[in-house]
Amino acid sequence: MASETPLPPLGSVLIVGVGASLGTGAAIARRFARAGHPILIAGRNGEKLSETYAELKAIGANVAMAVGDGSVAEDAQRFVAEAQALAPLAVAIHNAGSNNPAPFLKVSQARFEGHWREHTLGGFQTAQASIPAFLEQGFGTLIFTGASGSLRGKANFSPFAAAKAGLRALSQSLAREFGPQNIHVAHVIIDGGIHGERLLTLAPQWAEQRGPDGMLNVEAIAEAYYMLHMQQRSAWTQELDLRPWSETF
Amino acid sequence: MASETPLPPLGSVLIVGVGASLGTGAAIARRFARAGHPILIAGRNGEKLSETYAELKAIGANVAMAVGDGSVAEDAQRFVAEAQALAPLAVAIHNAGSNNPAPFLKVSQARFEGHWREHTLGGFQTAQASIPAFLEQGFGTLIFTGASGSLRGKANFSPFAAAKAGLRALSQSLAREFGPQNIHVAHVIIDGGIHGERLLTLAPQWAEQRGPDGMLNVEAIAEAYYMLHMQQRSAWTQELDLRPWSETF
Amino acid sequence: MASETPLPPLGSVLIVGVGASLGTGAAIARRFARAGHPILIAGRNGEKLSETYAELKAIGANVAMAVGDGSVAEDAQRFVAEAQALAPLAVAIHNAGSNNPAPFLKVSQARFEGHWREHTLGGFQTAQASIPAFLEQGFGTLIFTGASGSLRGKANFSPFAAAKAGLRALSQSLAREFGPQNIHVAHVIIDGGIHGERLLTLAPQWAEQRGPDGMLNVEAIAEAYYMLHMQQRSAWTQELDLRPWSETF
Amino acid sequence: MASETPLPPLGSVLIVGVGASLGTGAAIARRFARAGHPILIAGRNGEKLSETYAELKAIGANVAMAVGDGSVAEDAQRFVAEAQALAPLAVAIHNAGSNNPAPFLKVSQARFEGHWREHTLGGFQTAQASIPAFLEQGFGTLIFTGASGSLRGKANFSPFAAAKAGLRALSQSLAREFGPQNIHVAHVIIDGGIHGERLLTLAPQWAEQRGPDGMLNVEAIAEAYYMLHMQQRSAWTQELDLRPWSETF
Repeated sequence: MASETPLPPLGSVLIVGVGASLGTGAAIARRFARAGHPILIAGRNGEKLSETYAELKAIGANVAMAVGDGSVAEDAQRFVAEAQALAPLAVAIHNAGSNNPAPFLKVSQARFEGHWREHTLGGFQTAQASIPAFLEQGFGTLIFTGASGSLRGKANFSPFAAAKAGLRALSQSLAREFGPQNIHVAHVIIDGGIHGERLLTLAPQWAEQRGPDGMLNVEAIAEAYYMLHMQQRSAWTQELDLRPWSETF
Repeated sequence: MASETPLPPLGSVLIVGVGASLGTGAAIARRFARAGHPILIAGRNGEKLSETYAELKAIGANVAMAVGDGSVAEDAQRFVAEAQALAPLAVAIHNAGSNNPAPFLKVSQARFEGHWREHTLGGFQTAQASIPAFLEQGFGTLIFTGASGSLRGKANFSPFAAAKAGLRALSQSLAREFGPQNIHVAHVIIDGGIHGERLLTLAPQWAEQRGPDGMLNVEAIAEAYYMLHMQQRSAWTQELDLRPWSETF
Repeated sequence: MASETPLPPLGSVLIVGVGASLGTGAAIARRFARAGHPILIAGRNGEKLSETYAELKAIGANVAMAVGDGSVAEDAQRFVAEAQALAPLAVAIHNAGSNNPAPFLKVSQARFEGHWREHTLGGFQTAQASIPAFLEQGFGTLIFTGASGSLRGKANFSPFAAAKAGLRALSQSLAREFGPQNIHVAHVIIDGGIHGERLLTLAPQWAEQRGPDGMLNVEAIAEAYYMLHMQQRSAWTQELDLRPWSETF
Repeated sequence: MASETPLPPLGSVLIVGVGASLGTGAAIARRFARAGHPILIAGRNGEKLSETYAELKAIGANVAMAVGDGSVAEDAQRFVAEAQALAPLAVAIHNAGSNNPAPFLKVSQARFEGHWREHTLGGFQTAQASIPAFLEQGFGTLIFTGASGSLRGKANFSPFAAAKAGLRALSQSLAREFGPQNIHVAHVIIDGGIHGERLLTLAPQWAEQRGPDGMLNVEAIAEAYYMLHMQQRSAWTQELDLRPWSETF
């Protein structure tokens, strides 16, 4: 039995939260670019973003970049507008990962609020900016990056867990409201260290200790995001987890 | 086999988020006052708080009141200081309930942030202010008010669900960090309409339609909070739900 | 505001899964007996049951005993009939705790099935036998004993976790079907070692290592069961956890 | 960054719970056959199985069939042996779907036990039979079919929910034990009506009422199973849900 829906068009893909080319955001960009999508990469660090932009260009991607803060409404709106300048928006991805664990009494209000701004409010802004475009054209895919902290609050992880749990609830609420309007809202729980720029820079020895494939390969993560976008709408995934084979959980 | 812990002392009880005497906060105050605890009621609406204060006085409670915004660090610190002026702080309760459902695209950033401030940041501030006092004296009970939105994000409930899910993650993180330091951190999921000031004022006909005991009685809610405080520490509850017998869930 | 429901009558309390007087079942029996309820204790081990019966008698309880296997329909029906011979059935409690962790490939079909029979089918039989009595009289409380395995399957715990997760799903289904018929169905997640007969006999050194109150006191567990029964029906708890203050989770 | 693991070999795929060619099991068989895997389809209904076998043959699949009951150890062992006769076992899938909702007091012990046998014990047997083969060769994929009942027990669904929740706990326990031995254990939550043989036969009008793509397309389900098998092991999914875009949840 053939699917009742046509292939998704090669619209533009907005990825908010792109940093160095070793990171998850850049890998997602490569994956969608490889499938022929125009890409708008957005992030706060213009220097890292420029390098990633150059590397995407070098592999032949149709890519543009926008520096800004995805938790600020104006910036999120601008990101969507610039993606739409490439092609009708097909996919918006909110990908943020900062996490600074600390004993609770060492957590300042600024840090607690900062995590909320980056993870929860950032997701809100990406959704506010992209959903009207999706509704107008009648389809769209909206993906949020979660973490094990989305599911449970461990000791010393209150800023991250509170922010990621809030984002997860947001993603559920959006899936329920906009799924029936043909917008696929998905939430990816990344449970484990990512073999990406952050950990390789901050804790290079950790990767070695984890053994082969003991950290999440960013290309493997990106594959899951692309798969979510490609799902036929009669069988959409709202949530999946990604975890190294050797991870304790 | 007798418990290995003595009866908890009749320390002071801080209740943040107290409004009219018909509400949950006031009922919790009555319950702990009835057990002999000195009470500090705190809330943003001085007029409602004064009425509740007067009624608590009238039934003989040892009570004080403090007007302020529990999501502001200085106010939260002041609440704890005023409670400790009555007696060493035994219990801190963060009780907030605002919920304004709306289609997602009608939710302003201000509303989304306002819910986070009230529910999540408010819980954070109550915890930051009370835990040092608990640690110093070696015991304490910290209770947060949750809702069905703490567990899942329904359509049109994103501000509330994101905020309450964040609060729940915070409560778990605190329970894991401070349980072993003899602080009982609990989270109460109230799933259903409360037979309290808000719904009786805004939707009086709703209570009737629900039938007998079809909405949560505030005294019954308060009983659960008191029970949590009285639990022997070898068998602490981190989370429980409260729901009318006739509620669909 | 006074509750709209009268005090629950002092009906009989059936406790399935009672062993030695050091155990949880016996403590639950003592708690309800202390409140004046007639008690029917039931279990598979006649010798242990007789000792517990004698001790309950010695403290003045109105108690009867029935030897049998709660996972067998005829026995479960008999337990209910014998409880009703004491007084109309007010409370039925299915309390089972066996757990034999093992590497999966060492788990025989008999062990996997045995755990299901004890925990899941036993709960089914207690419900099948007690609910008709509850429906006839228009009220009742039905409580199931769960564990951390009810929520997640750890390595080497598949027989226990599969059985307890099944019981939990059963309890939810029954709560949804029979709550609106005034039957309170609750599920208690006991997360930690119980300071009861099993562990004190099998691993006496463990209790010491855990430190003061580091294992669940059976009287504290029993208090939670009694509290559940006493809840006013506008604010029933379907599920709560019980965990020592010092437990890692 | 290239993956550190080679492409999975085209080992044999065992699918337990295959019925008519309109069903999920047959679609999974087609998907893996299309990728070049030899397939062993197994099921209780020899007539339906033969038809599906013939259709798979007709499209050029390397396929064999085995009639038997996957909840019986000997049959499960035989299924694995017959799959290994085709090629080293790469994938074992336990796919069972029976669900007979009924008011709880109408549920016989036989029905309650029957669901457990099919869903939970069947999963256990598939795991017991396939895991030794996986361990010997050092890799393998084991997938279980779940449902919305795996996550929550609705009224009237106790046999199904208890059985599926037990299966889910089993899958988690196996993932934790055998993930670090390079066996990918995954659980698929199918939440919605399947556009397959059962519903099209029993309730043909329902499909129409659901609108386009309103029921899960079996090919779309099968795609998710194949994707799980193809995941790079640094980013394995333990659980995902599949749900029609228009489904209420």
